[in-house]
Amino acid sequence: MRPYELIKAKRDGQKLQGPDIAAFIDGYTKGSVPDYQMSAMLMAVFFKGLDDAELGAWAKAMLFSGEVLDLSDTPGVKVDKHSTGGVGDKVSLSLAPLAAACGVPVPMISGRGLGHTGGTLDKLESIPGFKVDLPVSEYRRLVREVGACLIGQTATLAPADKKLYALRDVTATVDCIPLIASSIMSKKLAEGIDALVLDVKVGSGAFMKEVEDARTLARTMISIGREMGKKVVALLTDMEQPLGRTVGNALEVIEAVEMLRGNAPADYTEVTLALTAEMLVLAGRAKDAKEARHALFAAIKDGSAEKKLHELVKAQGGDPSAIADLTKLPRAKHTAVVAVSTSGFVQGIDSEAVGLAAMALGAGRERTDSVIDPAVGFVLEKKVGDAVAPGEPLVTVHYNDAAKLDAVKARVAAAYRIGAERPAPRPLVLERLE
Amino acid sequence: MRPYELIKAKRDGQKLQGPDIAAFIDGYTKGSVPDYQMSAMLMAVFFKGLDDAELGAWAKAMLFSGEVLDLSDTPGVKVDKHSTGGVGDKVSLSLAPLAAACGVPVPMISGRGLGHTGGTLDKLESIPGFKVDLPVSEYRRLVREVGACLIGQTATLAPADKKLYALRDVTATVDCIPLIASSIMSKKLAEGIDALVLDVKVGSGAFMKEVEDARTLARTMISIGREMGKKVVALLTDMEQPLGRTVGNALEVIEAVEMLRGNAPADYTEVTLALTAEMLVLAGRAKDAKEARHALFAAIKDGSAEKKLHELVKAQGGDPSAIADLTKLPRAKHTAVVAVSTSGFVQGIDSEAVGLAAMALGAGRERTDSVIDPAVGFVLEKKVGDAVAPGEPLVTVHYNDAAKLDAVKARVAAAYRIGAERPAPRPLVLERLE
Repeated sequence: MRPYELIKAKRDGQKLQGPDIAAFIDGYTKGSVPDYQMSAMLMAVFFKGLDDAELGAWAKAMLFSGEVLDLSDTPGVKVDKHSTGGVGDKVSLSLAPLAAACGVPVPMISGRGLGHTGGTLDKLESIPGFKVDLPVSEYRRLVREVGACLIGQTATLAPADKKLYALRDVTATVDCIPLIASSIMSKKLAEGIDALVLDVKVGSGAFMKEVEDARTLARTMISIGREMGKKVVALLTDMEQPLGRTVGNALEVIEAVEMLRGNAPADYTEVTLALTAEMLVLAGRAKDAKEARHALFAAIKDGSAEKKLHELVKAQGGDPSAIADLTKLPRAKHTAVVAVSTSGFVQGIDSEAVGLAAMALGAGRERTDSVIDPAVGFVLEKKVGDAVAPGEPLVTVHYNDAAKLDAVKARVAAAYRIGAERPAPRPLVLERLE
Repeated sequence: MRPYELIKAKRDGQKLQGPDIAAFIDGYTKGSVPDYQMSAMLMAVFFKGLDDAELGAWAKAMLFSGEVLDLSDTPGVKVDKHSTGGVGDKVSLSLAPLAAACGVPVPMISGRGLGHTGGTLDKLESIPGFKVDLPVSEYRRLVREVGACLIGQTATLAPADKKLYALRDVTATVDCIPLIASSIMSKKLAEGIDALVLDVKVGSGAFMKEVEDARTLARTMISIGREMGKKVVALLTDMEQPLGRTVGNALEVIEAVEMLRGNAPADYTEVTLALTAEMLVLAGRAKDAKEARHALFAAIKDGSAEKKLHELVKAQGGDPSAIADLTKLPRAKHTAVVAVSTSGFVQGIDSEAVGLAAMALGAGRERTDSVIDPAVGFVLEKKVGDAVAPGEPLVTVHYNDAAKLDAVKARVAAAYRIGAERPAPRPLVLERLE
């Protein structure tokens, strides 16, 4: 079928056949279908959607546009976790060693931060020497020998997605659930996983502001996984405020290590445990979430989770002594405290505003070629529900460039909403879907 | 505003501002807005439409992407007619000299045939020597001195439309009323007209199959005209069967000349008179349609309409003796008769099928680079409502290539629907809008 006819069929709400979708995406990847036909198709998909079979074919075509890793030489059920992105989301840093310590092989290909959201790769690179651009052969070996490996996207995995994402970014077709879902799933399935846990963030700081949209996205990704014969579980988790107390690369690594020592804030700990427990159950390492949590608590208590992180850091070229002694991680030259100005209760923290303020400080990227300062960021001294009184510390800013301080202090202070009433508590895990 | 933001705004159903539309189309014409962003915008417009103000801005931006002819040195109200395209539609060939003979200056830029529809330029070129690629200066002179000039689209008029049309053609965004309307109107307004009569064809052989769609298209074009300060009248006319009895270039010229002599079929005559009468009223040459028809009948009766055609042909390099003696026009070497096979009444003639059969015979273009045979075509011996009996001639095929004959005879015969009942008569002019 000609590209024109496929665009017209989708535009008119007709169902596309799998082989036609495969040929269209293959043609686009190889250059025989031009950008302008793909962008018309993307906009038609924005309006008309893709049904389960179309979605499966779309994601499969993207997956098979490149190499699909085969990790069958690693015994056991390989499970990864993917988050749709939030602020202060350092879950992967603690989840991967925890799951690996409990015997779940974790092949994890992560992204970099852009705009208000941070990226796991940037956080890892704040550990001196840590390499995220390992060759695929090394990635395969570390999953088998260490039990986990965290690297960046390679050019050979799902190249259609890289090309498509760049096009969506300039044609207003990014915020389209079937396209988001097939983009994520094609990359994740290329890693060589057997099962996947999804952390779909919901709230003002997330891509999905409403539970209903998050649920649709989760269901769409689960459906793609099913079409490809993979088990997928999704948790919808709260992103009405940043997760944990830190926002910034080295600061988040510190908090992640503290989590493996049992010393992290409750919200971050709870979200990590909930997601990792799902991984253990999917991998057959625990019969249910309760049994999984016991195993996770044990791995924290006996130090095996932190030991696994040391192994992982060492295997990827990093300095494990910087994990053992956290003062060896990059530290900002200065700190400044933003004080509380009114009394009451913290009712909300605009995560996106906090993320953008962190970006302005140098912790994140405005453009893909921006250079990150690993040391800078925020420690949120108060979180939603906390009582506050004038003069108390609200946020500690870790900074290197004094010229940026005043504007950043004002922005992060403005992200807090303080009121007279104590807000009703909000659950951290809103829903579980499979 | 960035192109991305405009695409997103349209996608989300927001109203675009005139200067933004102008910048977007200007950027596209000049190359700073790439094809893939325009195609995403076109698909968003397909789904979300353009309101009157947006339409006006869109058409105006396309109009001012190139030269806008100024015919103010020609006295009087310059009026053109545009048809949305049909089969056997030779109206322009008789309408232009008729209107000019009645004192209405007619600046007319026409198109070529493609697919099942014929083109006025191809029909004119069957007159020996006739030139349709005159320079603009000559076009301007002939409108002033002869009272009419019929040329082809030039590269300097509405170049945005040419580029946009090529893109719509490969991105399934051709059949979108606001885009059709702004394409037509930008080209027509660039001609230097003061007023315009639209012939919006409705029926199986037309682009608009339903009256409702044709009405929407007519209203949309009238709205653009109003935004640009031009008077526009639209007639919705029947295209459930080919217009007149001939389909083919020289054959249609013959029928057009016969119309100016008062000898043409009733349907073709009536549609031409109705449209030309509107032109006379718009130009202030008649106070109403009735008075206009009197003037048109007079121009036919006293020979001045045919004389104007002679002048026009001569002025554009053609041989007027081929109009005086129609046997001098290109003639096919052979004719063959398709006979009626069953008795009853002609209930319908599939115009598109007739047009495609004519194209297969060589009268039309399959691709833009196809070469036309001016002599070949059909004479429809029976039309809708006619009683037929086995053995009577149904269609006379004028052909040069015997190898094509059998298939073409079968196709044109299959275009006829013959049944026992005499069909209810259908009006030729379905509606008038202004």
